[in-house]
Amino acid sequence: MPNFKMLLQYEGTRYQGWQKQTSTDNTIQGKLETLLSRMCGHSIEVHGSGRTDAGVHARGQVANAHLDTGMTAEEIRNYMNRYLPEDIAVVSVEEVSQRFHSRLLVKSKTYCYQIINSGLPHVFDRRYAWLFPEKLDVTAMEAAAGYLSGTHDFAAFTSAKKGKKSTIRNIEKIRIDKQGERLCIYFSGDGFLFHMVRIMVGTLVEVGTGKRKPEEIPEILHSRKRELAGPLAPAQGLTLMEVGY
Amino acid sequence: MPNFKMLLQYEGTRYQGWQKQTSTDNTIQGKLETLLSRMCGHSIEVHGSGRTDAGVHARGQVANAHLDTGMTAEEIRNYMNRYLPEDIAVVSVEEVSQRFHSRLLVKSKTYCYQIINSGLPHVFDRRYAWLFPEKLDVTAMEAAAGYLSGTHDFAAFTSAKKGKKSTIRNIEKIRIDKQGERLCIYFSGDGFLFHMVRIMVGTLVEVGTGKRKPEEIPEILHSRKRELAGPLAPAQGLTLMEVGY
Repeated sequence: MPNFKMLLQYEGTRYQGWQKQTSTDNTIQGKLETLLSRMCGHSIEVHGSGRTDAGVHARGQVANAHLDTGMTAEEIRNYMNRYLPEDIAVVSVEEVSQRFHSRLLVKSKTYCYQIINSGLPHVFDRRYAWLFPEKLDVTAMEAAAGYLSGTHDFAAFTSAKKGKKSTIRNIEKIRIDKQGERLCIYFSGDGFLFHMVRIMVGTLVEVGTGKRKPEEIPEILHSRKRELAGPLAPAQGLTLMEVGY
Repeated sequence: MPNFKMLLQYEGTRYQGWQKQTSTDNTIQGKLETLLSRMCGHSIEVHGSGRTDAGVHARGQVANAHLDTGMTAEEIRNYMNRYLPEDIAVVSVEEVSQRFHSRLLVKSKTYCYQIINSGLPHVFDRRYAWLFPEKLDVTAMEAAAGYLSGTHDFAAFTSAKKGKKSTIRNIEKIRIDKQGERLCIYFSGDGFLFHMVRIMVGTLVEVGTGKRKPEEIPEILHSRKRELAGPLAPAQGLTLMEVGY
């Protein structure tokens, strides 16, 4: 069966995240599998590049599926966009080699976490940002981000239970883009553990308010203890921007 | 009673517009009056700079109200933001002279109409833009906008019933800002008739697709006939940006 790679966008607000758990829950993967199964007349499995949590958005999620269909890639895209809910969109579909797998072959991912550093409500950003009122010291946050960059054991920065799987990841770059009261924190790396980006953001924000010093980051990493890192930042600020292969 | 000027933002998606009609409908003015009446313990009238239609947004709506309260402007703002729904926000409140009236003293208004010129769904813009698939010729639209600018009788560009009121308005400037497939059309003028911006947009879009020529605009203006102008563009693309006094 031909293998199709899909580039997806979604607003995560009303979903229980990417991953289907039961047949009745409201997930992105579930919506896609139900639609493609109906289109093909047989049961379809959709592989995402990784899960996104409940409430997290995507501008560049990648998925693939083997589809027994005579439709062209463009016809598949148009069919999907006609029937998907308006908060999920298929930007492109292309036929790829049988060997392509959207999760196993990931080389890099980029996330953006948006913070509005303001005590006022923000009507147009409320679904896509963490509204954080206390003044943030971006220079201190950048110093802390420098300690997080590179190859480390990120066991302290995940909510996943300890297991045999490696918790070592390489963060290629963390960049904080400040435009007035709007902060966009970009994280690029070879992969991220469960909740890793949101715990890094929670920790960076504690550095930004002066509750922690940037120099504490190496100790936290070294401890491998979740309780030494900062809180989990709210889901709605996070967007998966790009997946590289 | 002290007179307070308020700068407001709202997402119009779930409202029946600015203006209260009955006590049970869902309007911005109704929400504000109910809240301020509760705050002051007496019935409050809120004057807006003008109505916005159902589904139209505001980033810079201005209103005023005479409030019998000992609260400071900042306390009023904080009280309002605590109790208003999350799609309405009070950016600032200031005490102004008794003579200030947010509608009668308007000198200028600026609206922005956003079009995404794409056949693909746009998950993050769908509430704030008109998704228009057919290719638009922006140069032709700019030429047509040139004919609309200036002082004219805009009777052809309003859904209001013909009456004794003047339909002459001065449009100071129409500017089309194109960034990729995103068009933002800014309209600045001394005032706009009912539906005027959306009918101008509907007409500009017909010019953009080649259905009309820019040179037809003067005839349409001269005719004063609504049926010669283009269709009413969808409400969700329109945002009131600024009101000048």
